[in-house]
Amino acid sequence: MKYLLCLSYDGTAYHGWQVQNNCVTVQGVITDIAKKIFGVTCMITGCSRTDSGVHAVNYMATLEPCGNEYPHIPSNKLLLALNSNLPDDIAVNDVKTVSDSFHARYDVKSKEYLYRIYDHSIKDPFEHGRSYAYCRPLDVEKMKEAAKYFVGTHDFSSFMSSGSDITDTVRTVYSVSIERKNRIVEIRIRGNGFLYNMVRIIVGTLIEVSKGAIEIEDIPGIIESCNRSNSGMTVPACGLYLENVDYDK
Amino acid sequence: MKYLLCLSYDGTAYHGWQVQNNCVTVQGVITDIAKKIFGVTCMITGCSRTDSGVHAVNYMATLEPCGNEYPHIPSNKLLLALNSNLPDDIAVNDVKTVSDSFHARYDVKSKEYLYRIYDHSIKDPFEHGRSYAYCRPLDVEKMKEAAKYFVGTHDFSSFMSSGSDITDTVRTVYSVSIERKNRIVEIRIRGNGFLYNMVRIIVGTLIEVSKGAIEIEDIPGIIESCNRSNSGMTVPACGLYLENVDYDK
Repeated sequence: MKYLLCLSYDGTAYHGWQVQNNCVTVQGVITDIAKKIFGVTCMITGCSRTDSGVHAVNYMATLEPCGNEYPHIPSNKLLLALNSNLPDDIAVNDVKTVSDSFHARYDVKSKEYLYRIYDHSIKDPFEHGRSYAYCRPLDVEKMKEAAKYFVGTHDFSSFMSSGSDITDTVRTVYSVSIERKNRIVEIRIRGNGFLYNMVRIIVGTLIEVSKGAIEIEDIPGIIESCNRSNSGMTVPACGLYLENVDYDK
Repeated sequence: MKYLLCLSYDGTAYHGWQVQNNCVTVQGVITDIAKKIFGVTCMITGCSRTDSGVHAVNYMATLEPCGNEYPHIPSNKLLLALNSNLPDDIAVNDVKTVSDSFHARYDVKSKEYLYRIYDHSIKDPFEHGRSYAYCRPLDVEKMKEAAKYFVGTHDFSSFMSSGSDITDTVRTVYSVSIERKNRIVEIRIRGNGFLYNMVRIIVGTLIEVSKGAIEIEDIPGIIESCNRSNSGMTVPACGLYLENVDYDK
């Protein structure tokens, strides 16, 4: 039996998704609760590794009890059982069963991330840990112009932090949208996959464009250079949300 | 010199506004920081006592350094000095000087509170501590009908928790508005003053109306009864926000 879970979590208190020794992680919490519910060890497989402090709105993960000695629990009952055991900063939005061949990570067709920037000079206590407090007004129109250059299939190595063992650095970005909602600038990036910290470095580069430290027309050259030192900073994790994950129907 | 501060705070980590022994309070934090900035003890006077866990969007308080031996700090500089010393869950939105006769509490003409209820069956991790998770669908239209009866000048003793030494229990409610924003129901109540827990008990009573446990037309009788046992529960502090405070111009 394999279940597909759709999760939301406030990542502030977690060392990211993936189980690590001596750290509280979202995968770790769900693994413990699943074992309690099914009475056997359960394999929890996520769609993506999210970093420490990163949030998720619709994170997809499979839950597969090991062996054959476990109770059959219908999806709607599992949803209730998980939610009544989970801490307040993690919720299960939906549970359904999937075929045994389904893989939460390898079958992903596209993912969409949201990055939230608060750009007013006076901080907002209710945005602490929920957005990047940049505190200077952003030029959204300039950022939108620059964002167009990221769309398409490119070698994104200029936008990858070190510490990853990935060798194929070509990814396709389907869309980048930028929208102001009062004091929050929302940047959404959808693509077939993302390199380590790619969204956070693209956002950091768009901020440099807003400041005038990088010109709009410099973006294609920065992409082509395949050199991390030409792009902007890696913006903080607290502004990042995994918002949507698409699979083939 | 008397300054008027406009503050926002996430009240989750605080034992309310007012200084108490062995508790962290918003007034306590600001008093400590003001002393650090001015080098002398400062009197901090708030517009209202907010309870433990209650939030504020535009809380008004005066800051008055004691004695004459303190630096003259212009309002815009004081704003920066306060914000750079305050923790992330408290912010100063504005600072201006007021006359020595101005009193942050006694001169209040009206206050507006917001109460936020999350009414979906699956919790939202990003709403934890920011709204009351009621988790059953509210009937906003019924609540609006019942809310009309609270507007006007009434003895509100049916809507006051014990533990207050107030003897005059007559208050004027200017408006009650209720609006759904997706899974959040926002209730705003504006009045010339509020008894202890009055907003939270009015909201608890409106929830009883939504459930059908109290009928819309029973509200006038509950008000007239001046009996706390006839009204609804005191809803949790985490959904309450002091939103606006008006003074005579």
